[in-house]
Amino acid sequence: MEITRQNFKECLNLIYEAIEEADFLAIDGEFSGISDGPSVTTLTNGLDTPEERYQKLKKHSMDFLLFQFGLCTFKYDAAENRHIMKTFNFYVFPKPLSRNSPDVKFVCQSSSIDFLANQGFDFNKVFRNGIPYLNREEERQLREQLEEKHHQSNGTGTPSFISPNSTKGPIVIPEEHRSFIEKIVEKVEDLLKDDNGSIELDPCTGFQRKLIYQTLNWKFPKGAHVETLENEKKERYIVVSKLDDDERRRREEQKRAKEQEEMNDAVGFSKVIYAISKSGKLVVGHNMLLDVMHTIHQFFCPLPDELNEFKEVTTSVFTRLLDTKLMASTHPFKELIMNTPLAELEKRLKDAPFRPPKVESAEGFPSYNTASEQLHEAGYDAYITGLCFISMANHLGSFLSPPKVFVPAKSKLVEPFINKLFLMRVIDIPYLNLSGPDLQPKRDHVLHVRFPKEWKTSDLYQLFSAFGNIQVSWIDDTSAFVALSQREQVQIAVNTSRYAESYRIQTYAEYVDKKQEEKQT
Amino acid sequence: MEITRQNFKECLNLIYEAIEEADFLAIDGEFSGISDGPSVTTLTNGLDTPEERYQKLKKHSMDFLLFQFGLCTFKYDAAENRHIMKTFNFYVFPKPLSRNSPDVKFVCQSSSIDFLANQGFDFNKVFRNGIPYLNREEERQLREQLEEKHHQSNGTGTPSFISPNSTKGPIVIPEEHRSFIEKIVEKVEDLLKDDNGSIELDPCTGFQRKLIYQTLNWKFPKGAHVETLENEKKERYIVVSKLDDDERRRREEQKRAKEQEEMNDAVGFSKVIYAISKSGKLVVGHNMLLDVMHTIHQFFCPLPDELNEFKEVTTSVFTRLLDTKLMASTHPFKELIMNTPLAELEKRLKDAPFRPPKVESAEGFPSYNTASEQLHEAGYDAYITGLCFISMANHLGSFLSPPKVFVPAKSKLVEPFINKLFLMRVIDIPYLNLSGPDLQPKRDHVLHVRFPKEWKTSDLYQLFSAFGNIQVSWIDDTSAFVALSQREQVQIAVNTSRYAESYRIQTYAEYVDKKQEEKQT
Ligand SMILES: Nc1nc2c(ncn2[C@@H]2O[C@H](COP(=O)(O)OP(=O)(O)O)[C@@H](O)[C@H]2O)c(=O)[nH]1
Ligand SMILES: Nc1nc2c(ncn2[C@@H]2O[C@H](COP(=O)(O)OP(=O)(O)O)[C@@H](O)[C@H]2O)c(=O)[nH]1
Repeated sequence: MEITRQNFKECLNLIYEAIEEADFLAIDGEFSGISDGPSVTTLTNGLDTPEERYQKLKKHSMDFLLFQFGLCTFKYDAAENRHIMKTFNFYVFPKPLSRNSPDVKFVCQSSSIDFLANQGFDFNKVFRNGIPYLNREEERQLREQLEEKHHQSNGTGTPSFISPNSTKGPIVIPEEHRSFIEKIVEKVEDLLKDDNGSIELDPCTGFQRKLIYQTLNWKFPKGAHVETLENEKKERYIVVSKLDDDERRRREEQKRAKEQEEMNDAVGFSKVIYAISKSGKLVVGHNMLLDVMHTIHQFFCPLPDELNEFKEVTTSVFTRLLDTKLMASTHPFKELIMNTPLAELEKRLKDAPFRPPKVESAEGFPSYNTASEQLHEAGYDAYITGLCFISMANHLGSFLSPPKVFVPAKSKLVEPFINKLFLMRVIDIPYLNLSGPDLQPKRDHVLHVRFPKEWKTSDLYQLFSAFGNIQVSWIDDTSAFVALSQREQVQIAVNTSRYAESYRIQTYAEYVDKKQEEKQT
Repeated sequence: MEITRQNFKECLNLIYEAIEEADFLAIDGEFSGISDGPSVTTLTNGLDTPEERYQKLKKHSMDFLLFQFGLCTFKYDAAENRHIMKTFNFYVFPKPLSRNSPDVKFVCQSSSIDFLANQGFDFNKVFRNGIPYLNREEERQLREQLEEKHHQSNGTGTPSFISPNSTKGPIVIPEEHRSFIEKIVEKVEDLLKDDNGSIELDPCTGFQRKLIYQTLNWKFPKGAHVETLENEKKERYIVVSKLDDDERRRREEQKRAKEQEEMNDAVGFSKVIYAISKSGKLVVGHNMLLDVMHTIHQFFCPLPDELNEFKEVTTSVFTRLLDTKLMASTHPFKELIMNTPLAELEKRLKDAPFRPPKVESAEGFPSYNTASEQLHEAGYDAYITGLCFISMANHLGSFLSPPKVFVPAKSKLVEPFINKLFLMRVIDIPYLNLSGPDLQPKRDHVLHVRFPKEWKTSDLYQLFSAFGNIQVSWIDDTSAFVALSQREQVQIAVNTSRYAESYRIQTYAEYVDKKQEEKQT
């Protein structure tokens, strides 16, 4: 089901219900870009530490926009041994709702945009009809501004845009505006002599409006109701009305109710994420580190500086996360599954020893067909991810005695895979551990090599040809990590390089120490 | 006429022709954002120097994308005293055409995107069908890479992706790839024993392809033709064919011709800008500084660091520029025209003493109707800008004796307005002078004031209430320029402020000196 600004409000209860009744949820995001660094591969070195990887992703990926969010909810129907799913495909866009709301800037990467364009992605739906959102801090600030405004206008009868200073003395009106303001005062005097009614002033500058507000509130503290409206050309103009106290109060209340509603609309899509968070349900994603980072960044708070804080925030937002790419790359699946990209995983899980689960769309929800490959759409990808999770979880049941055909999302069998997010292209650390310290491989068979920029991988193979099999992880044009097959060779390699001119070799431990030193100075 | 990637090539000659035959050209651009700074108003202080303004726009606006370019060409038909116009509305997008082409990142500002969305802007046309482009430097680099590749494969018979080192010795094949490569060598040996034919290898990694190329070129320097293709899943795979020398040469030539064509396609929309530049025709725009900066930045070269260099580049690209906003704000027009935003200017110029010109669309070109306001589209805005120029230019003819009804774009009467670009919201410098040094107003009646962030404009009016009329230009939350009406009061104000605690006043000259000093240290 496609959700845009147009049908979001009317669908919200449907969405809440789907989350509430579900056994687990699958999610996926589409972004305006992946990495604004020099190249994805240099940014994801094979020997990054989890901390380094987090820092790189935070620095080079968070300026992109998550603009499509897929949610697929799954509920098990034991009687029929089938799953009922509800798929939502949300278009999300930070439309500035008022002059006070943040004017978000985001980066697009042309290769990512082009990729989505080729998949038939509808950018007009995002930019014209995307659901707005606020993160927690933005929401807090806007609510505070609103309250302060109400508070001030309650207390003193003057609206908040008058600073404390200027209410004390008489208002200073610059000479060039004086006759303009005087004319308006005359008009208002005329209005107040007459019956109830109102006058529209011509559109004018913000500064002039400020002067009008100040003057009228000072001269006519009670009888005149002053408000700013916008015409169809987006010009702002002032309307002054003569109102009795009751009418005045009624209007104020109406205006506040409307402001509260606008505030709620502005929180928009964040409500869905808060509902997911509050549900405490298992949330499944495929290679989901970036999805999780973007979700927190966009709908909760800017990402914290340290990986440990990020883990804290993440586990407080999502109680249980499961990454199907990590699951597929872990025993007992890695022995059975060669390729873990989502589309290939999904295909593999259709064959023995796995069994494709019976999954049906809930009534009123469109169904996807996995046979004819759908466009690369967040809702579809979330759905596929959910399918993969069910197949793999059920496979774990076959190891029980007696074997079980269905393993629920809450089962202890799934526990080993919880809160471990796949780390792309890290050789020796398979996952980021959200619920504890990360694995610390020794890396005592690894060398750090510095060389001229003309060198190619083959030059490194040649340099280390005496040491048998090696594994190269490029850092940049002039340096790389080289993993030797035997730890004992490390010292030999360092020694033989001592007098080399064109290149330089140090151990991984030396490299880490030096980097630590540099960081501290 | 709407031009996208789909019809660009077939329309190119039509576009060239329109530019060639025109008396003058009008242009307009739509961008993904205007300013990524804290706020447009803080970024455009009323007392910026032209150099400061250029630096701010360069720093805060060039990361946005110019994604729609409007061109309207005007040709005078003396017999009928009418203008024939041809309007082009180009959608532009930096689609990465190959793995070597730049992967452009650009910023979007949600308020700008939302504004365009409300006007019905079609983002899908930009992102799916935008015409690609290269700037001069990118084009040079890609051409060089192409030539080097051809040169190398001519010289040694080996393609360029083999580095000089690795062609010397035998190829080092890492152990884990050895059996993979050996199997391929066997297959190719079998192929070469047989008749003509070819084999497709399975998709594999870039590194494996490199090894295959190296090995096959070394083992079979003549008989085997090796090339990389892409399947519909965008996976790259190698095809090896047995070819005689003639066939081999023919294929190479075909491949090169195709590469040359792709190169030309990649230059894409830049060709239109080059044609405009080469024509030397008058180019008219409305408030066109940002349009000019973006055009140079995107299609020629990164903007130079200094304003003077920018002027040089600009005048070498565009021989004659005219800004209708500047024209409308200058004698003898400023006395007649109150509001200079494009839509209002256009309306004003329909009334006396101006006369709306007779303008008709050329055959086969859609016509715009100024009565029913069109969507905010670059082609339409360029058209309106052209209309405004014609009306104002013709008005200049009324001052001649005998008066003239038609003043051509080449007329000397237009000369005073050439190469002066409107400077938004600068109080005392109306334009950036492209063909010489800029105006240097004295500003000896201006003060620089520093104060607590709680202060409002009214506090400044109060502070200077003894000095009569003042003009405030905010710099940031805690400082502003204050222009006094009389130069003589400047020293008095500075003196009386000497012992003030909450604020600090200095003359404009002192402020400039201090800033200069800071810059040098
Ligand atoms: N000097 C040099 N740098 C390389 C070479 N191969 C890779 N690199 C660098 O390492 C980065 C990552 O390369 P790699 O992991 O092979 O991924 P690729 O981008 O798929 O080719 C590249 O962007 C280069 O900066 C090489 O042969 N020579
Ligand atoms: N402290 C303070 N800053 C102001 C005030 N008015 C303007 N500014 C600053 O100056 C900038 C430009 O303001 P202005 O030219 O009035 O344009 P506006 O954005 O249309 O209100 C604002 O973004 C503020 O940073 C004020 O009354 N008090």
